[in-house]
Amino acid sequence: MEKSNRPLIFITNDDSLHAKGIASLVEVAKEFGDLVVIAPDKPQSGMGHAITISHPIRLTRSTIFEGIEAYSCSGTPVDCVKLGVYEVLHRKPDLILSGINHGLNSSTNVLYSGTMSAAVEGAMEHIPSIGFSYGDFEEDADFSAPMAVAREVIPQILKNGLPKGVCLNVNIPQGPAEALKGIEVCRQAYAFWEDRFDKRLDQFGRPYYWLTGTFDSREDATDTDLHFLDQGFATIVPTQFDLTAHKAIAGLKKIF
Amino acid sequence: MEKSNRPLIFITNDDSLHAKGIASLVEVAKEFGDLVVIAPDKPQSGMGHAITISHPIRLTRSTIFEGIEAYSCSGTPVDCVKLGVYEVLHRKPDLILSGINHGLNSSTNVLYSGTMSAAVEGAMEHIPSIGFSYGDFEEDADFSAPMAVAREVIPQILKNGLPKGVCLNVNIPQGPAEALKGIEVCRQAYAFWEDRFDKRLDQFGRPYYWLTGTFDSREDATDTDLHFLDQGFATIVPTQFDLTAHKAIAGLKKIF
Repeated sequence: MEKSNRPLIFITNDDSLHAKGIASLVEVAKEFGDLVVIAPDKPQSGMGHAITISHPIRLTRSTIFEGIEAYSCSGTPVDCVKLGVYEVLHRKPDLILSGINHGLNSSTNVLYSGTMSAAVEGAMEHIPSIGFSYGDFEEDADFSAPMAVAREVIPQILKNGLPKGVCLNVNIPQGPAEALKGIEVCRQAYAFWEDRFDKRLDQFGRPYYWLTGTFDSREDATDTDLHFLDQGFATIVPTQFDLTAHKAIAGLKKIF
Repeated sequence: MEKSNRPLIFITNDDSLHAKGIASLVEVAKEFGDLVVIAPDKPQSGMGHAITISHPIRLTRSTIFEGIEAYSCSGTPVDCVKLGVYEVLHRKPDLILSGINHGLNSSTNVLYSGTMSAAVEGAMEHIPSIGFSYGDFEEDADFSAPMAVAREVIPQILKNGLPKGVCLNVNIPQGPAEALKGIEVCRQAYAFWEDRFDKRLDQFGRPYYWLTGTFDSREDATDTDLHFLDQGFATIVPTQFDLTAHKAIAGLKKIF
């Protein structure tokens, strides 16, 4: 890559290098910097913060985005970030972008999300990082609304940076860009999957299970991502990797 | 399973049903309740909070633990918890135990850990949940020290429960039980992997990569799990699934 004074932006996702979401993000991001893209070679939704340690990882150069250095990777989204920083770039990029995910990663879905785990890994590397997720699962979804949001958020974070150890979880509700009511900074909602397994029998009569279920909010609050998404706003949840439940320490110290 | 007044304890891990660590945990836990075990059919270290959504999951009855209902599962540790609660037990157990992991899950390793993600999933289901990890990777490690800690922690949590949305990350340093200095409740240390990729060439001259690296602490604090493990204590970090960086909300609201 030639030397440039433009910001170096690293892009990944969890829907694979062939998803429309990442192409949409590349299209927006190239207005703001020089790009390097490393994305999984197959869909990696639901991979959370998984890393590949029991088998080796492949990295293959791709010409999918004209004029942009891109690779497909056999690993997870977090592997893509680690490979990007330590093996391909040999330096920290100025910004990491992940997405645009086909489907929301609001509320506790952040824990299962490969898209957001890539952003969290970026925060652990002290790199400003943003995950974008859109409320439409379709392969050929119209990404103009999340692209409009990305076009607003990216330059602000390039200019202002982010607090140490914090990345952004940006979700955009399904619908045309004109219908968006605005952007709200808020907290992760307290909501959970009521899981269900679809049990079937294979050709030998042996059972197998598909994970399914419904997502239910357990609170009626008006300061959460689920609330604002329902109202037609895009949401930004600042997200951290310190999982310590600090408030619980004192009580446990009385027991142990 | 016959009706019993004893607590119902669900056990899983990420090292597979065949690991010495889970056998050690079963041995301790059966003193305190009736057990059901579902564990991965192959090692799932580093799987984080991954779930299996792109292919079906297999669940196979196992007789590995005499007199105990046990299954091997083709999915991840989080899949095991979901299958346990929703498909096998059809009710919430009184306690979820995960481990004993071969290797520590202190500091930010909690994010990559399948062992701890199973406990976090338990917390999301409002079930008191504990992950145990021991500082010895060996297949035939001497688990007497972590077993002694589990024997102390399990009855306390059965008696006192845990705050809503909180599980425990319990780590035990390598060494004999007699050498343990005690148990300390503390916070997750601020430390990270300095990743490195071991690049090799296959028989066709094509590169592949093994993820490796060194784990470095970036702080000199005396209230962290890494500090107390270094001093010879077992550590308990209360761990939550709310990733919101609450302190960052106000600053971001000035921008968006």
